[in-house]
Amino acid sequence: MGLVMDCEEKFTAIVKGTRRYFSRAQVKKAVLGVSGGIDSAVTALVLAEALGREKVYALYMPLKLKQGDKNLRDALAVTKMSGINFAVFSIGNACSYLAQTVWKPTKLARANLAARTRMAVLYSFANSKKALVAGTSNRSELLLGYFTKHGDSGSDIMPIASLYKTEVVKMAKWLGIPRKIIEKKPSAGLWHGQTDEKELGLKYEKIDKILSGKFDHKKSTPELEKEFGKKAVQRVLLLVKKNEHKRKKPVIIKA
Amino acid sequence: MGLVMDCEEKFTAIVKGTRRYFSRAQVKKAVLGVSGGIDSAVTALVLAEALGREKVYALYMPLKLKQGDKNLRDALAVTKMSGINFAVFSIGNACSYLAQTVWKPTKLARANLAARTRMAVLYSFANSKKALVAGTSNRSELLLGYFTKHGDSGSDIMPIASLYKTEVVKMAKWLGIPRKIIEKKPSAGLWHGQTDEKELGLKYEKIDKILSGKFDHKKSTPELEKEFGKKAVQRVLLLVKKNEHKRKKPVIIKA
Repeated sequence: MGLVMDCEEKFTAIVKGTRRYFSRAQVKKAVLGVSGGIDSAVTALVLAEALGREKVYALYMPLKLKQGDKNLRDALAVTKMSGINFAVFSIGNACSYLAQTVWKPTKLARANLAARTRMAVLYSFANSKKALVAGTSNRSELLLGYFTKHGDSGSDIMPIASLYKTEVVKMAKWLGIPRKIIEKKPSAGLWHGQTDEKELGLKYEKIDKILSGKFDHKKSTPELEKEFGKKAVQRVLLLVKKNEHKRKKPVIIKA
Repeated sequence: MGLVMDCEEKFTAIVKGTRRYFSRAQVKKAVLGVSGGIDSAVTALVLAEALGREKVYALYMPLKLKQGDKNLRDALAVTKMSGINFAVFSIGNACSYLAQTVWKPTKLARANLAARTRMAVLYSFANSKKALVAGTSNRSELLLGYFTKHGDSGSDIMPIASLYKTEVVKMAKWLGIPRKIIEKKPSAGLWHGQTDEKELGLKYEKIDKILSGKFDHKKSTPELEKEFGKKAVQRVLLLVKKNEHKRKKPVIIKA
């Protein structure tokens, strides 16, 4: 991750790679979940460029559709900009049924349940369209394990997963994605008022520098600590380690 | 896969490996979905032995609970035999909500939706118990790709995934699992009357020999065809190839 990023070059590479993957899989269409956020916006534009806008289906899946929903407004803005297909499907009723159990799901468990339910709906939609499911994860989230296992990470292809969050922001600006989307605080939408940076306790600007230092430049922990401070580095490395299992396939026990 | 399998040795190895994984993950409990079939029965017994029966939670998740449900009876029999905890949770209402979409899910899409919904419920339960989700996949299913991506394969640990289906049967006999469970025709329970062997078009006895020939003994396709017949080998190898993507993590496109 350099300070200067050639957006055009990266966008072209991602579009080509995406197109190649679909072509090899002999699938023409893609389905993605859109949230009104920046990751799904950039992913939608990549897919539209790679496959043709009429081959891409965006699904907005709130728990409950409310009047004046700003995320819906933003998701629609990107849909219009890219010309892809768009549908809304509320998952709240199904999630309520699934939460009616003897055990009481916690706030986080409910959020994870919603993420997994969205994945199931995306695949159902993809089945009906003979499409692949495109995930919208970025590299920062994947390395931190900041996602729901088998939820938002449950997909066939991840077009922007080689870009750090700060790179997604640069790409979004270069693509001309509306300012209100770019300036919105990153949120996994787990609950009302939730923002990534509040939950992670660090800004993405710093997180990405630490992650890039570790994974791209293979810097040692003392080196990183000297550069970015012990507390921040320990926080990031703890998440990377704790959530390692999320980045791996389920463990097969040897007989 | 030898003709003679030392069940005790394999069971002990799997139990030890499972215990070690939980211990390293610092988790004491496991949740698994049980279907009344042989795979979940053997998995339940492995977990009970590895963690202690009071630490294992079996969840039976029919679409709708019916009187005289034979799979429930069989799931209960194994639960009693192993002494683990047991609960029933019907997912039909939630699945009906999720299927109420503008696109009409096909029979297979509905079955996949149910598998993914079960996964979401297992994780919700696991969250509440601070448990890991144990998958019940066997090696034959995994190699064939005969499972729902991010559905029944969506788990943290797969205790019996190094055993072929025919080995699971041997293990079940050795463990003293009730005959009615062992003799039941293997079924993914995707729809009424569905059996694996009817859908796959081959008996597991033959499938496992072909898979073992290819993956364990690295035999060439002509060798396998000479031994097991061209049609059977082609059928198995086609599934292995076609479903390769199910065994891999989502593809990350390089920028």
